[in-house]
Formats: sequence, C-alpha cells, structure tokens
Amino acid sequence: MCLLAGGLCIPDPRYRESLIQEEASMQTGGQVVLNEKEKRLDTRLLKMKQDEVARADFPPAMHFFKARDLIRNSPMFSLLQKMPKGGALHVHDLAMVDIEWLVKNVTYRPLCYMCFTNTQSIRFIFSSQWPEPLPNCSPWNLLETLRAKVVNTTDLDNRIRGKLTLFTDLDPEKVYPNQDVVWDRFEQAFMSMWGLVTYAPVFREYFYQGLTEFYKDNVMYLEVRALLPEIYELDGRTHDKAWTLKTYQDVTRQFTAEHPDFFGTRIILTVHRGANSSVVTEAVEEAMKLQRDFPDIMAGFDLVGREDVGRPLWYFRDALSLPTERGVELPFFFHAGETDLQGTDVDQNLLDALLFNTSRIGHGYALVRHPVAKELSRKKGVALEVCPISNQVMKLVTDLRNHPAAALMSENHPLVISSDDPAMFGASGLSYDFYEAFVGFGGLRSHLGSLKALAINSIRYSSLNASQQEKALTLWQRRWDKFVSENAF
Amino acid sequence: MCLLAGGLCIPDPRYRESLIQEEASMQTGGQVVLNEKEKRLDTRLLKMKQDEVARADFPPAMHFFKARDLIRNSPMFSLLQKMPKGGALHVHDLAMVDIEWLVKNVTYRPLCYMCFTNTQSIRFIFSSQWPEPLPNCSPWNLLETLRAKVVNTTDLDNRIRGKLTLFTDLDPEKVYPNQDVVWDRFEQAFMSMWGLVTYAPVFREYFYQGLTEFYKDNVMYLEVRALLPEIYELDGRTHDKAWTLKTYQDVTRQFTAEHPDFFGTRIILTVHRGANSSVVTEAVEEAMKLQRDFPDIMAGFDLVGREDVGRPLWYFRDALSLPTERGVELPFFFHAGETDLQGTDVDQNLLDALLFNTSRIGHGYALVRHPVAKELSRKKGVALEVCPISNQVMKLVTDLRNHPAAALMSENHPLVISSDDPAMFGASGLSYDFYEAFVGFGGLRSHLGSLKALAINSIRYSSLNASQQEKALTLWQRRWDKFVSENAF
Ligand SMILES: [Zn+2]
Ligand SMILES: [Zn+2]
Repeated sequence: MCLLAGGLCIPDPRYRESLIQEEASMQTGGQVVLNEKEKRLDTRLLKMKQDEVARADFPPAMHFFKARDLIRNSPMFSLLQKMPKGGALHVHDLAMVDIEWLVKNVTYRPLCYMCFTNTQSIRFIFSSQWPEPLPNCSPWNLLETLRAKVVNTTDLDNRIRGKLTLFTDLDPEKVYPNQDVVWDRFEQAFMSMWGLVTYAPVFREYFYQGLTEFYKDNVMYLEVRALLPEIYELDGRTHDKAWTLKTYQDVTRQFTAEHPDFFGTRIILTVHRGANSSVVTEAVEEAMKLQRDFPDIMAGFDLVGREDVGRPLWYFRDALSLPTERGVELPFFFHAGETDLQGTDVDQNLLDALLFNTSRIGHGYALVRHPVAKELSRKKGVALEVCPISNQVMKLVTDLRNHPAAALMSENHPLVISSDDPAMFGASGLSYDFYEAFVGFGGLRSHLGSLKALAINSIRYSSLNASQQEKALTLWQRRWDKFVSENAF
Repeated sequence: MCLLAGGLCIPDPRYRESLIQEEASMQTGGQVVLNEKEKRLDTRLLKMKQDEVARADFPPAMHFFKARDLIRNSPMFSLLQKMPKGGALHVHDLAMVDIEWLVKNVTYRPLCYMCFTNTQSIRFIFSSQWPEPLPNCSPWNLLETLRAKVVNTTDLDNRIRGKLTLFTDLDPEKVYPNQDVVWDRFEQAFMSMWGLVTYAPVFREYFYQGLTEFYKDNVMYLEVRALLPEIYELDGRTHDKAWTLKTYQDVTRQFTAEHPDFFGTRIILTVHRGANSSVVTEAVEEAMKLQRDFPDIMAGFDLVGREDVGRPLWYFRDALSLPTERGVELPFFFHAGETDLQGTDVDQNLLDALLFNTSRIGHGYALVRHPVAKELSRKKGVALEVCPISNQVMKLVTDLRNHPAAALMSENHPLVISSDDPAMFGASGLSYDFYEAFVGFGGLRSHLGSLKALAINSIRYSSLNASQQEKALTLWQRRWDKFVSENAF
C-alpha cells in the first residue's frame, strides 16, 4: 500500500497510480474498451477538449446564450454533431423545432392571426373566418395585412421570434434575474406558440420538422413528452388525443420509411402539475386507455411544469395508484428534483417518483442531496435524464462544471443526456447538451468511452422492449463504426 | 415494503415515512438527540429558516457582497452569532481582522509610509528613517503628511480600504469577472497589507484583535494557517520564524488568561505553492524544527496559494516525504481540491493529500467528483474544512445552494465550517459562513442537531490531543447549555 520508511509510510507511486486508474474506471464509460481506431479518435478528442479548457472564455462556465456561438464554432462541437448519439429521451412536444421555422415559414402562411396580450406576450390562431376576440388580448390582426402595413417586416419578425423563445442577445442575467421571471417567460412563450403549432396542418409538419432536426443532429430515436393538445382545423373543428397520438405515429412511420437509419419515436403523455386531482385522475385514465390502444407508440405518463410552484407527486398519489389498483401497466417517467429548494414537500418528489416505480427521472438535479433516493435510483437502475442547458437557463446552476451530474458521472450513476426544450434555449438536437456535459462536467478525464456509454445508455434506458433495444443497438453500432472510421486519423 | 394491489405495488405511506426519516438521520447531526430546551430552540430556528427561504432576495443565492447586510440584519444571524461554534480550523494569519481596524487605527500611527504601485495597488512600511524606494512603486509618502495635504481624508481612507479587501459596494460580478481577476486582486490585497501587519508592534496587536473578533463571534479556538513572515522593527531589524511563532504563543496565553472561556490557538506553518522544490524543502525542515521546539502551539504544515496555477502536491513529494523518512511526525493540513478544473494534475491534489496522510483537507471543493478520494476521506475520518463564502467570492460557485457540501452534509461526510479569509470578504468570525452553510446548503432539513454536530466536529477534527479535546468539549458544552437556556422560549 505504501513504501515503508522509518516505521511510517510514504505514498507508493504504483499504489497512487492504481487509485487514479481505479477512479477513472469508475466513471461513466470508464470500463469501455476502445479499439485501435477509437483510440486514435480519442486522442484527437482529448486534444480538442484541452483546447476548449485553455480558452479565456470557457463556454461551460458561461451562460449558454453567450456561449452558443463559441460552442457552435468549435471543432469539438462539429465532431459531437457527427457522432451518433442514440436517443433523446427527454424532449417536449412544443420545443423541438428551431423557432426560425415557425417565424419564417408558419407565420407567413395564409389566414394566420395574431393578437397582443396585456402581459406583453402574443397569441396566434389560424382561421377561415375572422376569429372571436380573446380575453386580455388586443383585437386580432391578420398577419398578412399587418406585414403589408409595417415599414420593416424584419423588426416585426424579430419581435415575434423574441416572444417564442427565451433566447436573447441581451444580457441573460439582466433579462432573467431570477427563477420566477424565467419560468414566467417560459410559460408565456409556450402559450404564444400554442396557436401556431396546434393547427392541424402545422402540427404534422412541426413534428416532421422536429424529427428532421434531431435526425440531422445524428439522433436516431426520440421519446417525446407530449401534452397531446386539442388540434384544430381552419373551420374550428377539433381532434381528440387519440387523433393526435395517431398523427405522431403516422408522421413517425413516414419519416422512418424515408430515413431507414432512424429508429422511431415513442410518446409520454404529460399533464400540467398545476392541475387538480380530478384533472390528473382523468389524465391517468386517458393514458391507460391510450396505452392499451396504441401500445407501440405510447410509452407512459408524466407530470410537467415548474415543480417548485406545482403540487408534489405525493399529492396525486391516489391518481398515480390507479393503474396498479386496476392491474394495468402504465410506465411513469416523472420529472423530479428539478429544484434547489431542499427539504420542502416538493423536494420529496425524487423519493416518491422512485416509490411509484418511475422508469426514469426527468432532471433529478437534487438527487445528490438525497442519499436514500440516490441509492434507490442506482439499485433499481432508474436513469436520470440530465439536461444541462435547461438547468442553466432555468437558473438552477450558473457554471456548468458545478452541475451535480459531474459527481454522478464520476461514479457512473445511471444517466442519459437530453435537451428538454432546445427551441426555447436557442439550441437544437442534442449536440449542444453533449458539449456541455462532455466538456463542462465531464472534465478532462471523460473520454470517447464516456460518450459511447452515454449513447448506449440512451438505448438501454429507453422504453423500448428488449428485442427493439437490440435492433436499435445494432443500428447504432453500425453508425458508430462509420463515424469512428471517418473521424479517426 | 409496499401495499399490494392486484399483484402490483403502490407505495406504503409508512414505508415512505421510514425512508424520509432514514434520509434525515443520515445528514450531519441527523442522529443528535435534542433535549426539551433544545427542541424548543429548534422550533424557533426552523421558523427563522423558513422566513429566510421565503424572502424575495434569498441571501445564499446572492453574491455575499450583496447579501451581507441582509444576512447581518436577519434574526437567524443574531442567533448564529450567539451560538458557541467551537473552533475555526481554517483561517489565514493576515485576513483575520476587520479592515476597518487597519485603516482607522494602524494607518493613523506615526511613521507610516505608503507608496502606489504601477499595478494600481499600494504598499506600506513603518520606519524611523525615510525608507528606501520600492521597485515599481511611487516615491514613499508619509501618511500623516499626505492626510494633512488632501482635502478629504475620508476619500483617502476609502481608497486605502478598497486596496486591502476584495469587498466592494460595486457589482462584484463586474469588478471580478473571472477567477484570474479575483485571485490577482486577492494576492495584491495581501501584499498591500503586508507592510502594515508585519511591523512588530502591529503584528502582536493584529493577532490580539483577531482573537478578539473571533471570541466575540463565540468561537473558542483557532487553528491559524500562518506564513510566519519576517517581522520588522522601526529601525529595520527583523525577527525569525521562531520569534513570530513565540509571539503567537505569548499573545494567545495573554488572551486566554484574560478570557478563561477561550481555549487557545494552534498554528499551521504555510508556504506558497508557487515556490520551487528547494524552498518547500527548506520550509518542511523549518516546520519539523518548530514542531520539535514549540510542540504546544505548532500543529503542522500546509501549502497555500491558488491551486490552479501553483504546483501540484505530487511535484513536492520528496519534500513532503522528508518527515516520514526521518521518522519525525509533522502533521499535514493540505489545501486541496479548491478547483473546478477536472482531470488536471492539480486535480489529483485531493488524492495526494490523503496519500500523504493529511489530517484535514482545506476546502475539498472537488471531492464529490473523486469517488476514490471521497471514500478514503470518509474511511480515514479526514474532515473537509468547508469555507462557503470564500468559495463563492473566489468564483467556484454562484448560488451557495449548489455548493457540493450540500451533498456531503446530506450524508454526514466529516466536515467543519470555516471562514478562510474573512477580512478579505468583508465578513468576520465564523457566523456568516455558518449562516450560508445552515440556510444555504443545509436546506430546510438541517436543524439544531446539525449545528451542534458542526460545532462538535470543529473540536473532534482539530489538532488537539485527546485530553485537550475532552477539556475543550466540556468548556464548549457549558457554553452551549447556557446558549440554549438563554434562547429557547
Ligand atoms: Zn422537461
Ligand atoms: Zn485557505
């Protein structure tokens, strides 16, 4: 253990080296054995990471809004973009697609109306007739007419864009001084987008466009948290949740047919945690029905919205016990621990999610402060869906090196990397979050094996059944080998 | 374990409650049994903490420079100030005393000269003759003459004060945009103070004043990291390290005689980690000699200065092996892991400190990212000296709820709370750091038992021998009981 000298002990360099190796092998991907080509790529990767660390402006230490262009222009990012990342397991239905597409394409379609709310937000609707006025909103403007009237349509488009995303060129610390402000703006942006995206023809295309963006980012599979909102037609007719779910299924089938190396999509039905018990009970009932009728695409159930102001999971325990009571299997994928308040009722969500046998945990930011829940999550193999940029923008953490996933990755706690609401944050796909995870909290010790493990985790911890997972892994491995061959030199 | 329903499982509320209790009992102080009076005080304390959490401006989430007045005026702070906190185990020699005392008392003494460096800093010297010019500094000004010449001495005093501390009323994020800037200003401030504090009559009084400030803050014992700098007299004669150490001993004896409920001081000799091997070797030799000659006051040895730019401990392994090779016991108290760079050579300091049998770890900020080192520290009972305000001001962490000690406290990892360089941060004593620890990363779950455990830790993990510890604990317990009696209602 150490070299003896005069009855005392001085550290033996070989023992020291063995401890360093032991620690390195404990991290995510620490036991992955790389082949020759992978080792060459890993050497390039380490060099790239050292270059990132040596920068005066270290992107993971900065707010993503300021860091985005630095990241995008880095060789590291190009490489991560090309890398087959497996699945994105934590993405929300209405924040998948670059806002640019909504502004430049959707809002330019005919019969698009907009009004200005008295909370400095906007609302949209498509309608064959002049729509009924909305409460607390200005009279409707037909966008076509409005654009013809204004001098500078670019200004108008910028203004619209600013309402649909949190991303800003201004100082984000000034614009979003605290969690209350940023969550409020977040929910306003969702409501602004609502009327654009829930219009049936747009809805279909939006999802197709979302799949395209993730596919281009070399993501092969998605699990989408979806509210399955009421979708409307130009004449005001609406469709129910089953229709919406079927649309997701149809679009996925079409996309997969056109892109055979894309594996597919599954949907997690979500309801807002601000709702009351009877609404949540109804949503659980609906989820069980959809799970029975659409077993291929339905993955399970979750609650969304800001945990700190919503009701804790335990409040909904009767509703959440329904499936079990009826002997029906409805997998849960709970958001939990997206908080920095310790010891409150909401802070028990992590434990309760695990007690309700959640399949994964959305965020789990607070897990490191809960040793019992942490141990349970490890033992049961319940993976965390870590979304670094989301946690930073929503003001849980400033410097991403301080993200608790740094500790979790150092001990290979089950986790995957995801992007939550990339469109809201001015990101897209998964690569920006992979950059933050790998360069930010992965530290210099994480390597190609870590990235490989994260990609494999995203399939192993998905809701796919065993044989689907094998198929997906085979597909992923083929793409991975190609990626390594093309980039190892 | 759970209630059965249709062959499946729903969470049993009693099982859930038992897990919540189990987790609560795992935290620092989680197993402390409170007596009736303590329970009453704990109820008050919880109420105070809830009031702090409910504030719009939550102090632990803010930079300390902005939070200080909010903290100082809170009922929680008054209570923590009155609380007997045990020992302060991580405090540096030249940052113990409120800067106000240096400005308003020391710089007003006769024969105090000041010059302005070309790095916008200042230097001082006391001298019976006009002092020799310093390189890179303006000609010397006799402060008495300068003050007679300037219109507004308050302005001058403010300017001097600003050079002696990092504390500022300006926006700290603007003034200190990154770690390089804040460390540079930190070292400049030390150099500015140097000539004031190393003047023999001031040196003695400075330390006495330091003991007074900690004593008033209800700290009963100190372990001071001391450079034992060359101390000078008015005529330029200087004293060696032994003289300086003896002065610490004399002042401590005087102070303890005057304040029988103060327990004492021990000194940890420090050398700057920017030094080369031969300087460090010499310092280790000196430390061994002092340890032999002054066993009562000498506690051991440490390296100081910014880890990220200094040499790693392993670089100095020959020097650090000397005591063992010679069969001499020289306890180490290494600063280690005060970094957010992961995977660098410096990031091995934690492991190396433990391999060199360090008695405690200064900061250990990075420990949660090092599972092997973490396990070693736990097994060997090597406590971390957690200094929350220091870590925030030196820009390792922004929102103190994200401090890694939150996770460590949740699992009762051995640790103590200390204040590092309170004068540099505009703090004093230990109470501000106790506030940040208790309200910030302790969360709502930490309670009076946690505070009690932290105080006891500060004696149990001190360098005092077993019988001294028992004496100190008895003294502390008496003060604690008085504190509880006076504040439980
Ligand atoms: Zn989410
Ligand atoms: Zn220190």
